[in-house]
Amino acid sequence: MPQAPETLDGWYSLHLLYAIDWSSLRLVPTEERQTIVDELQTFLNKHEEARTNHVGDHAFYNITGQKADILLWALRPEMKDLNAFENEFNKLKIADFLIPTYSYVSIIELGNYLAGKSDEDPYENPHIKPRLFPELPQSEYICFYPMDKRRNETYNWYMLPLEKRQELMYAHGKIGRQYAGKIKQFITGSVGFDDFEWGVTLFADDPLQFKKIVYEMRFDETTARYGDFGSFYVGHIVTKDNLQDLFAL
Amino acid sequence: MPQAPETLDGWYSLHLLYAIDWSSLRLVPTEERQTIVDELQTFLNKHEEARTNHVGDHAFYNITGQKADILLWALRPEMKDLNAFENEFNKLKIADFLIPTYSYVSIIELGNYLAGKSDEDPYENPHIKPRLFPELPQSEYICFYPMDKRRNETYNWYMLPLEKRQELMYAHGKIGRQYAGKIKQFITGSVGFDDFEWGVTLFADDPLQFKKIVYEMRFDETTARYGDFGSFYVGHIVTKDNLQDLFAL
Amino acid sequence: MPQAPETLDGWYSLHLLYAIDWSSLRLVPTEERQTIVDELQTFLNKHEEARTNHVGDHAFYNITGQKADILLWALRPEMKDLNAFENEFNKLKIADFLIPTYSYVSIIELGNYLAGKSDEDPYENPHIKPRLFPELPQSEYICFYPMDKRRNETYNWYMLPLEKRQELMYAHGKIGRQYAGKIKQFITGSVGFDDFEWGVTLFADDPLQFKKIVYEMRFDETTARYGDFGSFYVGHIVTKDNLQDLFAL
Amino acid sequence: MPQAPETLDGWYSLHLLYAIDWSSLRLVPTEERQTIVDELQTFLNKHEEARTNHVGDHAFYNITGQKADILLWALRPEMKDLNAFENEFNKLKIADFLIPTYSYVSIIELGNYLAGKSDEDPYENPHIKPRLFPELPQSEYICFYPMDKRRNETYNWYMLPLEKRQELMYAHGKIGRQYAGKIKQFITGSVGFDDFEWGVTLFADDPLQFKKIVYEMRFDETTARYGDFGSFYVGHIVTKDNLQDLFAL
Amino acid sequence: MPQAPETLDGWYSLHLLYAIDWSSLRLVPTEERQTIVDELQTFLNKHEEARTNHVGDHAFYNITGQKADILLWALRPEMKDLNAFENEFNKLKIADFLIPTYSYVSIIELGNYLAGKSDEDPYENPHIKPRLFPELPQSEYICFYPMDKRRNETYNWYMLPLEKRQELMYAHGKIGRQYAGKIKQFITGSVGFDDFEWGVTLFADDPLQFKKIVYEMRFDETTARYGDFGSFYVGHIVTKDNLQDLFAL
Repeated sequence: MPQAPETLDGWYSLHLLYAIDWSSLRLVPTEERQTIVDELQTFLNKHEEARTNHVGDHAFYNITGQKADILLWALRPEMKDLNAFENEFNKLKIADFLIPTYSYVSIIELGNYLAGKSDEDPYENPHIKPRLFPELPQSEYICFYPMDKRRNETYNWYMLPLEKRQELMYAHGKIGRQYAGKIKQFITGSVGFDDFEWGVTLFADDPLQFKKIVYEMRFDETTARYGDFGSFYVGHIVTKDNLQDLFAL
Repeated sequence: MPQAPETLDGWYSLHLLYAIDWSSLRLVPTEERQTIVDELQTFLNKHEEARTNHVGDHAFYNITGQKADILLWALRPEMKDLNAFENEFNKLKIADFLIPTYSYVSIIELGNYLAGKSDEDPYENPHIKPRLFPELPQSEYICFYPMDKRRNETYNWYMLPLEKRQELMYAHGKIGRQYAGKIKQFITGSVGFDDFEWGVTLFADDPLQFKKIVYEMRFDETTARYGDFGSFYVGHIVTKDNLQDLFAL
Repeated sequence: MPQAPETLDGWYSLHLLYAIDWSSLRLVPTEERQTIVDELQTFLNKHEEARTNHVGDHAFYNITGQKADILLWALRPEMKDLNAFENEFNKLKIADFLIPTYSYVSIIELGNYLAGKSDEDPYENPHIKPRLFPELPQSEYICFYPMDKRRNETYNWYMLPLEKRQELMYAHGKIGRQYAGKIKQFITGSVGFDDFEWGVTLFADDPLQFKKIVYEMRFDETTARYGDFGSFYVGHIVTKDNLQDLFAL
Repeated sequence: MPQAPETLDGWYSLHLLYAIDWSSLRLVPTEERQTIVDELQTFLNKHEEARTNHVGDHAFYNITGQKADILLWALRPEMKDLNAFENEFNKLKIADFLIPTYSYVSIIELGNYLAGKSDEDPYENPHIKPRLFPELPQSEYICFYPMDKRRNETYNWYMLPLEKRQELMYAHGKIGRQYAGKIKQFITGSVGFDDFEWGVTLFADDPLQFKKIVYEMRFDETTARYGDFGSFYVGHIVTKDNLQDLFAL
Repeated sequence: MPQAPETLDGWYSLHLLYAIDWSSLRLVPTEERQTIVDELQTFLNKHEEARTNHVGDHAFYNITGQKADILLWALRPEMKDLNAFENEFNKLKIADFLIPTYSYVSIIELGNYLAGKSDEDPYENPHIKPRLFPELPQSEYICFYPMDKRRNETYNWYMLPLEKRQELMYAHGKIGRQYAGKIKQFITGSVGFDDFEWGVTLFADDPLQFKKIVYEMRFDETTARYGDFGSFYVGHIVTKDNLQDLFAL
């Protein structure tokens, strides 16, 4: 039996995607709509405390195209914190005007394929800890997609010997490192939590970099032979300053 | 023709998954909403008698993410008891505010791949009986997913000789046993009852164990070559104490 | 070109599956709801004449789980009789509270793989006629599922020589015959009528027999290599005595 | 590169399939409902001019089962005529009570696989012209299904040499010709117009012939190895005399 | 690892497809409906400035069949301009009567497979620049479909050496060039932006050319072995003169 790799697991993660029900929202009188958006703003502000206290973070983006209108990504220490976050969000007045389109339950994960053995506790390693419990960037654009490793009849990732997987992941990672400074990448694992195996969340100020890295990687054997993808969601940041604009009618 | 394994079959099983229609529920005056939730609480309390009388059990969890909000899992001696349970639930007032998202009809099943032959009636074996007619744990977290064994052109589970399947299931089971004490696992069979062939329902106080066991098993040949999965649902327990909180608005 | 087998074709067949819209039905005052259910009862009673006159039959079951709540299966001499039956049903008041979930158009079919050649008209054979134009059993449980024969690159049912198909069907049929007395089986063909190629409808008083036969057959080469399945629907009989109960609120 | 066959293209074609929303229609007072159905009747009568003037035709059938309730098939000289036809239909009052379930955009097509070379303009050939610009039969039953030719790894229709495709299509056509007098067949091409590559529309007075021809062809190599099918829709004719009946409540 | 080709990227691109909710629109008094359509007309007129100022363009077509009623295609210099365009459109009154059916986020892309190496900046090349930042034709008909390159076990586009892909793309392009003057073609790339990898948008005055080019290409190895397609949308232009007609009731 091929050996499963070690993983390091950080904060639990929940991607929530919603479409805005504009025709219902339009029926709400302007003043009441303001109250509804203010309540959402207050919710987001309150949860910024998680970032301040280093017990989580969240990101809020306006998705391009019709697959969704907003993406709210939350990170928390316990899975039940995500239930609480989601339930609190669904009880906001704005939720009456949001239609759930996709969600993704996972946990920040660092694959350990390339790690050397050491006696050190990796959760205390100062290079690793901030990647497991990250402060999210405020980049202009986000790109999120879930993925699987294929288990086809000829090419089955999970039947490859560990050494082959290490070699493939090393080449795969080399491409990623060429985008340092342009793209910040977060991998979350969801085996046992959701239908896909991993989620990839990328941040960049230039969205063309998303296309460049994903296209370049598609020619990499790890992806070309073994990668299967779910939907791609790309969006533009919603800041405190433009949240009101987004919902203005 | 490859030989079909014997199975032992216990209680009939019904997983019911629903999303909560928050925007409709919000329209209900607080007092009436209290009545609605009380009626649900009364329903759940009443059905605890099944556990007390050892004629079934049920579990109630709050699912993380948008695939569902609640999972109600019921076990009963006859399939028509499940119809009665489901119809009674659908006639509760709360059902007007629940949107069915997925259900799964099956029966508690013990594969007999590894059983030795004996004259004993396995249904009276004191190690087996409580696994066929179980009392469900009150763990903090639940994980449920349905699965199939693949019938591909090269790798076809149902064309393997019995000995090969026994060998594969033995290795598969060994991984499971390493999680004893951390995870309680229930297998339900649904060949002829529902679209997938088996359901796996796991209970744990630490949800990271769900990811660890499912990921480790993915490298096991039984899973890597022959396993196909439906959706994964993970959730946090709803107790008498927090049922009111869940529906509070 | 492989030779197509002869088939014998009996009554046209329509499986209609509906979910009950409980939240709308609840809005109807009790007395009016009684009128609605009485009209359905009258419809079912009237169509029992078809059975009495040997010009068709129907069955009515309460499906377990959320894929549907009721299954109404009708058999008639002409396909346009099924259109009339369906349109009449959809014009009942109860139909306003039923959501169509799946239907299946087919015709009672006896495969002739194993038939010897004779001068006799098989449609007048006293063993065959009642299987083509059957009186349906009033068993406690029903199981219905549609299926295809695979046309994969390596294993393509329709490219097998007639002799190989005969041999496979013989072994397949032998399993079925072991369940005589426990299960009554009806095969309907829908090539050219609906998306799947055949429908299997099983009746039994003990639903565990559905699981046993379908699981045992899965290890049979005909199924293991060549069978593809749609959804499985299992349900409990709705009699005159419990129809009122089913819709009572 | 394998050579693409010549095709002859006739009238543009639009299959429109709708479910009837009976519960909304029931809310309409009888007299108003009569007006609505009369308007539909007037629309259909008006468009019979296309047939009279040999600039198109249409067919109207009541589909059996829940995939749709009605099929309206229209043929016109220009694609924009189909847009006009569809928009006009959608603006009828009856359209408020119809739910679109499937549509198919194509063009009457005669494959030229078997044509000899000649100097003659095939569009003026008296055997070909009426097949490109047909008057539709008023048969009792219709059968419509879209299909693709497979491009699998081993069996890829589009990589076969022209001669092999000619040979396969010749055998395929021979089966079809055996049903002359029982079935009238129309092939429409939709490569570049819709998701499937071809649509097959069959007319017959005995619907069992649909099953017989499609089943017999399934054993033909063209279909067995290279055919992929969409949904099958079968229905009974709606004439002027029974249009009122269909919508009567 | 096979070498990824260079691409040239122009304007960001958003295809928006909507169905018209005729039954809701019919409820709107004629005068108010006029206001709603006028507002849409004003929106479209205003955005024609983008074309005038060479900072984008848009196209507006009436889709044939039920997959959508309208297609609005917008090109802009920045992705966030597309978010602004989409949000502005969704806030129009007409949007209350439009049901989103499909969208596609991409960027105008010129594959560089066939480019020679030169020191010249291709973005300043007078043959290339107008193809990256195009003025869209006002052809009578449009055809849009998304596509992928296959990564099958035997035929995997992304594992082919660059030379083989160049050779295949050269043959593929040769077919395209035969349609010069009949069809204008725009390729947009969406790797990392949307679920398919490329979108193809064709313009022609004779829609039969869409069928001819797509069918001819299907026999080309690039397509036959490596092409996978999403839905095909074909439609007729909506001009200022017939916009009112389209929405008239």
